[in-house]
Amino acid sequence: MADGKKRRRTDPTENSLPFKNKLKPDSVILETLKEFSTSSSASSSSSSAADKTLTLQDLSLPFRCREVADLSLSSVQSNIESLARKIAHSILTGNGFAFDVPSRSSANQLYVPELDRIVLKDKSSLRPFGNISTVRKSTITARILELIHQLCLKGIHVTKRDLFYTDVKLFKDQTQSDTVLDDVSCMLGCTRSSLNVVAAEKGVVVGRLIFSDNGDVIDCTKMGMGGKAIPPNIDRVGDMQSDALFILLVEKDAAYMRLAEDRFYNRFPCIIVTAKGQPDVSTRLFLRKMKMELKLPVLALVDSDPYGLKILSVYGCGSKNMSYDSAHLTTPDIKWLGVRPSDLDKYKIPEQCRLPMTEQDIKTGKDMLEEDFVKKNPGWVEELTLMVKTKQKAEIQALSTFGFQYLSEVYLPLKLQQKDWL
Amino acid sequence: MADGKKRRRTDPTENSLPFKNKLKPDSVILETLKEFSTSSSASSSSSSAADKTLTLQDLSLPFRCREVADLSLSSVQSNIESLARKIAHSILTGNGFAFDVPSRSSANQLYVPELDRIVLKDKSSLRPFGNISTVRKSTITARILELIHQLCLKGIHVTKRDLFYTDVKLFKDQTQSDTVLDDVSCMLGCTRSSLNVVAAEKGVVVGRLIFSDNGDVIDCTKMGMGGKAIPPNIDRVGDMQSDALFILLVEKDAAYMRLAEDRFYNRFPCIIVTAKGQPDVSTRLFLRKMKMELKLPVLALVDSDPYGLKILSVYGCGSKNMSYDSAHLTTPDIKWLGVRPSDLDKYKIPEQCRLPMTEQDIKTGKDMLEEDFVKKNPGWVEELTLMVKTKQKAEIQALSTFGFQYLSEVYLPLKLQQKDWL
Repeated sequence: MADGKKRRRTDPTENSLPFKNKLKPDSVILETLKEFSTSSSASSSSSSAADKTLTLQDLSLPFRCREVADLSLSSVQSNIESLARKIAHSILTGNGFAFDVPSRSSANQLYVPELDRIVLKDKSSLRPFGNISTVRKSTITARILELIHQLCLKGIHVTKRDLFYTDVKLFKDQTQSDTVLDDVSCMLGCTRSSLNVVAAEKGVVVGRLIFSDNGDVIDCTKMGMGGKAIPPNIDRVGDMQSDALFILLVEKDAAYMRLAEDRFYNRFPCIIVTAKGQPDVSTRLFLRKMKMELKLPVLALVDSDPYGLKILSVYGCGSKNMSYDSAHLTTPDIKWLGVRPSDLDKYKIPEQCRLPMTEQDIKTGKDMLEEDFVKKNPGWVEELTLMVKTKQKAEIQALSTFGFQYLSEVYLPLKLQQKDWL
Repeated sequence: MADGKKRRRTDPTENSLPFKNKLKPDSVILETLKEFSTSSSASSSSSSAADKTLTLQDLSLPFRCREVADLSLSSVQSNIESLARKIAHSILTGNGFAFDVPSRSSANQLYVPELDRIVLKDKSSLRPFGNISTVRKSTITARILELIHQLCLKGIHVTKRDLFYTDVKLFKDQTQSDTVLDDVSCMLGCTRSSLNVVAAEKGVVVGRLIFSDNGDVIDCTKMGMGGKAIPPNIDRVGDMQSDALFILLVEKDAAYMRLAEDRFYNRFPCIIVTAKGQPDVSTRLFLRKMKMELKLPVLALVDSDPYGLKILSVYGCGSKNMSYDSAHLTTPDIKWLGVRPSDLDKYKIPEQCRLPMTEQDIKTGKDMLEEDFVKKNPGWVEELTLMVKTKQKAEIQALSTFGFQYLSEVYLPLKLQQKDWL
């Protein structure tokens, strides 16, 4: 069948790689991907159009919900100023000084299946200055508002840690300023990134993507093996262009490095992105922006353990403590490409490369089976049930048992060829 | 004094920034830096020329030392092959199968003041296959050698984790394959990077540097705020060019972000690099390469605590468990710019932004006063003594107490103007 074709390698072990003989020529796989990409783009443009018009009110839920928006710096500034005027007026009319702060507790959170993300209901509570139990917190709130106002005037970005250090005497420890920062986001009705308070960056991106970072044009096909560090301030990221057919979201940097060195994105046009473990806010914002602007399907490659799926869920439907901002932080419709529990037998991963799940792993797995975002996808339920039943987990790196390049040369191409995602 | 000069900002608090009035015009500071850079380049070219010719033997130490070299892939390959032939010969002549493995224990380590780094003495031990206590370890050694030989043939890079997963049954846990990997480096007389086994990347670089990463030309002035991720494989990094006057080594990413956003490197031409905490091997290799090729002075900005100084020491004179490769991993002559214990009073850092040192901090500080690399620099001893005496520490971020941009607009310029480094 391969007669007359020049072989790329002379490695004698190559023919013995499991399932390598199932691989069709790249051109066939590329056709499959093009179809997928087009259909996904069509459905995502329609659903994203729906997204834009579909508000929480349209769902006619039995209660009101609160959502924040990406606001410009000048809007944030004027929101703070009008809040200050409102409070001044309240003081002058003898009604005292209090902030009306949205509740972010879990009792006020809700998973909305129609939107596939966690949202915040509209409960809120008063934080009066003239009350011994809230005087400290209302002072901190006023101080944070003042500091954010300064950031608006200067147009710079800072970290939460910077914010804390501007007034250690008042904040005492960083959790206090961090908590109030999220309160302030909710109060002003804007995302935390709109406040110009950014998280430390962890993620990297490589592959078929061109974008601008703070005015500089970045071509991610020309970033060598190291890739481009994902910028902490998403508001200075723009002009995304790509000829990729999909986005490959990778949990860990070892797998990322393998794919970057092999320039996997040139064989199958894609954008490869990783947050090197737990997803950070910058990477989540960046992934969503890519998905929304480029209308590309997202395929996820994570470890076959409950935490792999948990990471997928944070990208997909958000984390609970930032549920007020789930609309901007989540990327809808991420497909679980691998490594899935059923892959372990399917790809004949040797017993010694699988690890026994701990009690804690099994508990986490069972808890996740109760989560709405898992339940809505029957394929995921099946996989997770299998994991909990077999009590086995495996890392992406377990594929190296068949050779260092098995991941990029057999496993992923075969997955793509077979459209083997859920 | 500033009459007739257009003010850049209208922020009324700016004039009240402590010590801002001590700042001279940038042109004066730049002159200072140019002198420093030239003298440092002259001394480093002479010292680096000396470095190249000065071997451990030249020092006529009372014992022999072992050092590894950066070898090409083909040299590593032929070293493995000749080792295999030697062992085959030993078996055929009836002398059995054993590896001669250099000892990497602390008893075999030595700090050499003339070289300012930790080196390995030449003790080694036999690891015979025909002995129940070493049969496992010698089998692992043979397997690692075989895997490295494969990497040489394929010309690809893998992580330690990949290496572990190629034979979990034999290695059992990753510390076993990791340890033998370092043994193999020593046995073959080459650096771990020469084996094409790379560490996960953590570092980022931004500023006045152009280099090539795996064939792609990277201009680090055009990397926005995110910067360029430092590549894991130093052997594919080359063609470094720069018009910088110094390298600014930053401990943490919050400070890095501040400097990147303010494009500090355009006001004072420099290259800004950070490993985001503990220095990883990739960042250490990259820093050394910059220092050696560009002949630039390195100024370090770390937290004012024992760990800040420890981080400086790892960059400067190496970590103990990789002492066999200290020649390639260490960057000589790093200057301690700040934040130094004496800065806390000098810059009037408020009490509430300083943190009390824990018992463990104080013990670490006292232990470090006994380290050779601290003792050789009287200024460092003085600073560290002050820290241990006052029992106070502070993070770089503590400077935010005077405003978010105090670091980039006052503290660092003033430090540079006053040549205030040790």
